[in-house]
Amino acid sequence: MEALLQAVDSLYPEMVGWRRYLHQHPELSYYETETAAFVAGLLKQWGLEVRTQVGGNGIVARVTGNGQGPTVMLRADMDALPIQDQKSCSYASRVDGVMHACGHDAHTATLLGVAKILTEHREALNGDVVVLFQHAEEQSPGGAHSMIAEGALDDVDYVYGIHLWTPFPAGTAYCKEGPFMAAADEFEIVVKGKGGHGGLPHETTDSIVIGSQLVGNLQTIVSRNVDPTQPCVVSVGSFHSGTGFNVIAEQATLIGTVRTFDDELRSGVRRRMESIVGQTCAMNGADYSFDYKLGYPPVVNDAGETDRFFRAGARVMQVKRAPLIMAGEDFAYYLHHRKGCFMFVGAGNREQGVVHPHHHPLFDIDETAMRDAARLFISMIWDCQSNECN
Amino acid sequence: MEALLQAVDSLYPEMVGWRRYLHQHPELSYYETETAAFVAGLLKQWGLEVRTQVGGNGIVARVTGNGQGPTVMLRADMDALPIQDQKSCSYASRVDGVMHACGHDAHTATLLGVAKILTEHREALNGDVVVLFQHAEEQSPGGAHSMIAEGALDDVDYVYGIHLWTPFPAGTAYCKEGPFMAAADEFEIVVKGKGGHGGLPHETTDSIVIGSQLVGNLQTIVSRNVDPTQPCVVSVGSFHSGTGFNVIAEQATLIGTVRTFDDELRSGVRRRMESIVGQTCAMNGADYSFDYKLGYPPVVNDAGETDRFFRAGARVMQVKRAPLIMAGEDFAYYLHHRKGCFMFVGAGNREQGVVHPHHHPLFDIDETAMRDAARLFISMIWDCQSNECN
Amino acid sequence: MEALLQAVDSLYPEMVGWRRYLHQHPELSYYETETAAFVAGLLKQWGLEVRTQVGGNGIVARVTGNGQGPTVMLRADMDALPIQDQKSCSYASRVDGVMHACGHDAHTATLLGVAKILTEHREALNGDVVVLFQHAEEQSPGGAHSMIAEGALDDVDYVYGIHLWTPFPAGTAYCKEGPFMAAADEFEIVVKGKGGHGGLPHETTDSIVIGSQLVGNLQTIVSRNVDPTQPCVVSVGSFHSGTGFNVIAEQATLIGTVRTFDDELRSGVRRRMESIVGQTCAMNGADYSFDYKLGYPPVVNDAGETDRFFRAGARVMQVKRAPLIMAGEDFAYYLHHRKGCFMFVGAGNREQGVVHPHHHPLFDIDETAMRDAARLFISMIWDCQSNECN
Amino acid sequence: MEALLQAVDSLYPEMVGWRRYLHQHPELSYYETETAAFVAGLLKQWGLEVRTQVGGNGIVARVTGNGQGPTVMLRADMDALPIQDQKSCSYASRVDGVMHACGHDAHTATLLGVAKILTEHREALNGDVVVLFQHAEEQSPGGAHSMIAEGALDDVDYVYGIHLWTPFPAGTAYCKEGPFMAAADEFEIVVKGKGGHGGLPHETTDSIVIGSQLVGNLQTIVSRNVDPTQPCVVSVGSFHSGTGFNVIAEQATLIGTVRTFDDELRSGVRRRMESIVGQTCAMNGADYSFDYKLGYPPVVNDAGETDRFFRAGARVMQVKRAPLIMAGEDFAYYLHHRKGCFMFVGAGNREQGVVHPHHHPLFDIDETAMRDAARLFISMIWDCQSNECN
Repeated sequence: MEALLQAVDSLYPEMVGWRRYLHQHPELSYYETETAAFVAGLLKQWGLEVRTQVGGNGIVARVTGNGQGPTVMLRADMDALPIQDQKSCSYASRVDGVMHACGHDAHTATLLGVAKILTEHREALNGDVVVLFQHAEEQSPGGAHSMIAEGALDDVDYVYGIHLWTPFPAGTAYCKEGPFMAAADEFEIVVKGKGGHGGLPHETTDSIVIGSQLVGNLQTIVSRNVDPTQPCVVSVGSFHSGTGFNVIAEQATLIGTVRTFDDELRSGVRRRMESIVGQTCAMNGADYSFDYKLGYPPVVNDAGETDRFFRAGARVMQVKRAPLIMAGEDFAYYLHHRKGCFMFVGAGNREQGVVHPHHHPLFDIDETAMRDAARLFISMIWDCQSNECN
Repeated sequence: MEALLQAVDSLYPEMVGWRRYLHQHPELSYYETETAAFVAGLLKQWGLEVRTQVGGNGIVARVTGNGQGPTVMLRADMDALPIQDQKSCSYASRVDGVMHACGHDAHTATLLGVAKILTEHREALNGDVVVLFQHAEEQSPGGAHSMIAEGALDDVDYVYGIHLWTPFPAGTAYCKEGPFMAAADEFEIVVKGKGGHGGLPHETTDSIVIGSQLVGNLQTIVSRNVDPTQPCVVSVGSFHSGTGFNVIAEQATLIGTVRTFDDELRSGVRRRMESIVGQTCAMNGADYSFDYKLGYPPVVNDAGETDRFFRAGARVMQVKRAPLIMAGEDFAYYLHHRKGCFMFVGAGNREQGVVHPHHHPLFDIDETAMRDAARLFISMIWDCQSNECN
Repeated sequence: MEALLQAVDSLYPEMVGWRRYLHQHPELSYYETETAAFVAGLLKQWGLEVRTQVGGNGIVARVTGNGQGPTVMLRADMDALPIQDQKSCSYASRVDGVMHACGHDAHTATLLGVAKILTEHREALNGDVVVLFQHAEEQSPGGAHSMIAEGALDDVDYVYGIHLWTPFPAGTAYCKEGPFMAAADEFEIVVKGKGGHGGLPHETTDSIVIGSQLVGNLQTIVSRNVDPTQPCVVSVGSFHSGTGFNVIAEQATLIGTVRTFDDELRSGVRRRMESIVGQTCAMNGADYSFDYKLGYPPVVNDAGETDRFFRAGARVMQVKRAPLIMAGEDFAYYLHHRKGCFMFVGAGNREQGVVHPHHHPLFDIDETAMRDAARLFISMIWDCQSNECN
Repeated sequence: MEALLQAVDSLYPEMVGWRRYLHQHPELSYYETETAAFVAGLLKQWGLEVRTQVGGNGIVARVTGNGQGPTVMLRADMDALPIQDQKSCSYASRVDGVMHACGHDAHTATLLGVAKILTEHREALNGDVVVLFQHAEEQSPGGAHSMIAEGALDDVDYVYGIHLWTPFPAGTAYCKEGPFMAAADEFEIVVKGKGGHGGLPHETTDSIVIGSQLVGNLQTIVSRNVDPTQPCVVSVGSFHSGTGFNVIAEQATLIGTVRTFDDELRSGVRRRMESIVGQTCAMNGADYSFDYKLGYPPVVNDAGETDRFFRAGARVMQVKRAPLIMAGEDFAYYLHHRKGCFMFVGAGNREQGVVHPHHHPLFDIDETAMRDAARLFISMIWDCQSNECN
């Protein structure tokens, strides 16, 4: 393994170059054609057989080892976000209104580096390693689902993924067994009242009053209906109603998100919402529509594989137990089918001013986190293929 | 007086013609230049000396009587509304997005008719009559205020105004002593919270939750703080906040209206709002702005002049005691300076399908209401100048 | 009439004596046996034929006039309240916890005085006068209903009643045509949730949260569902729930009152309450009971008889147009069957410290109000029997 | 250790006898004089030197071992609850309204058993063992605090405590490192409004409306202000206001509890409550009082000692990771001063109908849980004194 870890150090400048190129050329979810071509081009150049267009713009390639140990799949995501880059550095986005504000460029560059090193050392591998470059992580239904449907996990035994994370300092890695990242669902409520003159409320059904009651009533789900030891969030992110000061509004549209870490709780919250929305509207004589869109399920890490993280990770960097993360990830789907775990690698650096949260227009990373992530991937593979016993 | 009333009948077709011409050529508040020119042209043609540009597009002319009795001022308003006419009749609006949806065209045509008749019978008048064509009634600060400031009430003793009203049937007139039409104020509240990730509410100050508490708390003004025998309305007409389902909103903007019939209550409601807005926001750690724009004051009819309405009105049509009207009118300002009253003349006709409320895109009137209104004006003048004793 | 009015002055000291005696010996609603005996004793002593036990403790007697004019009924109420008298004067209540804190003692004394005078001047009466002493005005279902059922209004043409009122100054009388005093209904809501450990809300159905939502939702009836020109009050007067700080409450009991002046509105409010209570509980998974007890209907004065008040009242004192009174009165029932009106006579006197509101433990009256009330009754009878033409 | 575990089996019938005796003779917190005498009597009978009246009715005795290892303190609590026993078994409570409804009788009997066995095998002990019988666990400020103040922890190195727990099945033991049981605080809010007539809300400050707003606003602490991954409960357990249906209430009293597992969060919740209470009242023009009584702090188990539990416990029974427990315990105070852990031993038995939760009038335990608890204590001591290395 030492040879591989040293190879990471040598390759690091090249990884930085890839990452910066991708950072300048971000592509939105489902539109990652240039990124996919860039990735596929490099993998082919290194002699790998590459499957393209897997479930969309997804790419899968297999590095064949000596065949004795299990096959490990590593995943990176490739898509960017509809955010205007406000950085002034040389590698800032060249695409107006699109930006790698979540670090997927670095995920891709890291996995490219790992792929190159593994290819060069394939004879040392105790089993195969599949590298998977996924499109469309940022936007439901997401690429993971369709890549799995098209066989991305065939002949794979273990799955690992890494997210670089600026709230954690570079040089540390975090993981947590069991529920780790939230299910992130979306809802839209439309209150259908009856508009009218602002001075004649009794001739109307006031959608704003009803919408406001709804916002208040929805607070009681978390405060009263959810086990206090179970993390849960119900947030109304947008409330739009009405056109003028002297007209009572006909409709109110509320959209928001529900975050849970448990399937039973998730469906329980949905049922509570249906009851609250339906009966608050009925109480006031209003119609309504309620649309609840399931987002990604919770990321639930395998306990044994998380133990592996603490063991194998500790060989290459500082490891810590992660808190629950309220964000969602479609890596969850891979874990529905295979053992594995999803890990966070710190990418923040307060001294260097790398402090902006993900999805911020000034987002950037401490690029040494890519080196850390590559070393963590290699250590995980090595532990898994040497010692499958989890 | 009989001669004058008969003249109304003869002139009625011409009044209809004027009204339909104006209906086809509506102009928005403060932009009534063509309408004003049309009115001034006719008045001059009949030999009256006309003051134009009074406080804006306002017009004032005096019909000189025999000088023994008091001077009576009659008022019509001339402006139209930013509404798309959806009628298909021959006299529908020819201006896109602008419409006489409140009947001011008919008010103007009626007063033109009265002016013509009075001019022709001026020797029979026991005093002078001032005809005042006001611009900008529909939009605060309104034309009345500025016309008064420029002397429109100089040498005037009594003021009368009429609104045609489709919720009342043609053939009836309504009035009420004391508070009659509402003060209609406007408010804007901006809740200034702190945005953030939809899954991390504890790092934010949720403007939608605060805005919703505000809507609920504002209900208690009418339900708890206002004397139940005093009509009062506080309506939030518009609530806009947030941009996405997974982002907690930084700001919420609520606008609405307050309707009252009493000055003390009006200022009391405003103080309650200040307290509710300020402390609901403070309680949640949010900043805010609160802007309260005074609209027109309540229309308060003189008791004696309302008695005159019941006496003089009954001579020409059916008269009834009006309910309180939640709408506002800047005729209120004239009544701050002179004795007088504001009257409603029914303009609805269910058999003929004239049923749409004011400000509706299909609004129309039973045009015979103009004849009724002209007769009512004449009877009021006659009673006032013959028998000033109120 | 002058003779009768002068007789009031002469009799006044005796009226004060009766009133003070009754004030010392108050009896609760439905238990007015001693009071009734006192009244009946005096009436018989003056030679009147007295019907006792009319619909309970009620008393009716007829003073026979010369038979040409209509029969007028005058009503007084006799019951006291469960309030501890805190006055220290000589005539303070001698019954622990019971007090004439609403002035019914003075109503009774006044009507006794009028009865004595009329009896002495019966030959001058143009028609009969019925004096009715009602039991149980303070407590639903009230005595009026049952006295009418037992024929109290037989051969009666007009009905008048007077309430002494300390918020109005002595020397003035008030009345209002149409709706005058409120319908005063009572409701009881029991929220039936599920109790449990204060730290485990998700295993409970929290009655206090539901009850609090109910209180908020009920505010919207007045603020949104009622015509702003229609007086209406919905008050929750009592909210009781829970036994300890660390136990979530199983039940919450809310009781309160609804005040309206219009039957359609009254039933509309009740329906809104049913909807709000039912669906707020259902939304939270709670059962409930909702009990709505109709109180007295609104007191609606006949317009013509109110005109009579302004005419006849003005002959003996200062008369004013009354505001709406949010309190209820079972005099309403008499007005369902006969023309008439209910009047208020001022009994407050700021200089003499007579300032406490009705139902206050320090309540007292300016006793000269009894003289005023007697004179008003006489003037009403006289006007009615002389000139029935309303 | 085997000898000691076998001794538990032999002694078990005697432990059952002690427990049943105590169950029949429960004493309320701070009044455990007979219980303390019973305990002290037995300990002295076995030859131990006993400190009585430690910080109240507390008892401490030391079993002296061979002096090489550390000193371990074991704690039992002795007080009962003000609950009426509704069981019909032979050992039901003989004291009206007082009951061992939380299992402290069994805690005491178990620790007596352990004390007897240790005394008999003292030469085998690698260190001293202190047995501590605490009074007043059920009621703040609690006995732990004062016993510590009077030296109960002098010369003690490690502290262990056990709670029998019917929600867990007999035969299992549960523990959790770090925050385990909640801080349980108590609050009382008094809203001081202005009472008045139910029909005249504008003359009052309605305490019930304000109290209801408070209940709603308090929900937002958990739903919006608390990190969703941090368990927290704010419950209003009691809401009392008002005396009649037609009187608006002057005051409302709300009491309730706050449960947290973290000191910073705990003080943050308190500050949010102060802000919500103060400004909701101020917004409505009401005064208030807000009293926040700190209950026991959270029980936070030492990580190393929890590891010991999983190791030593597994030698004698099935061990599991416990969930967070929303109840509080003043064992927390011992853990502020010494390393140690608090453990739960299952005492439920569905087949035998032992299913009632703690504080229930039918509460009982599967008595074999006492044997389990005794074995767990012994295994913990043995592991600690043999192998202090945590």
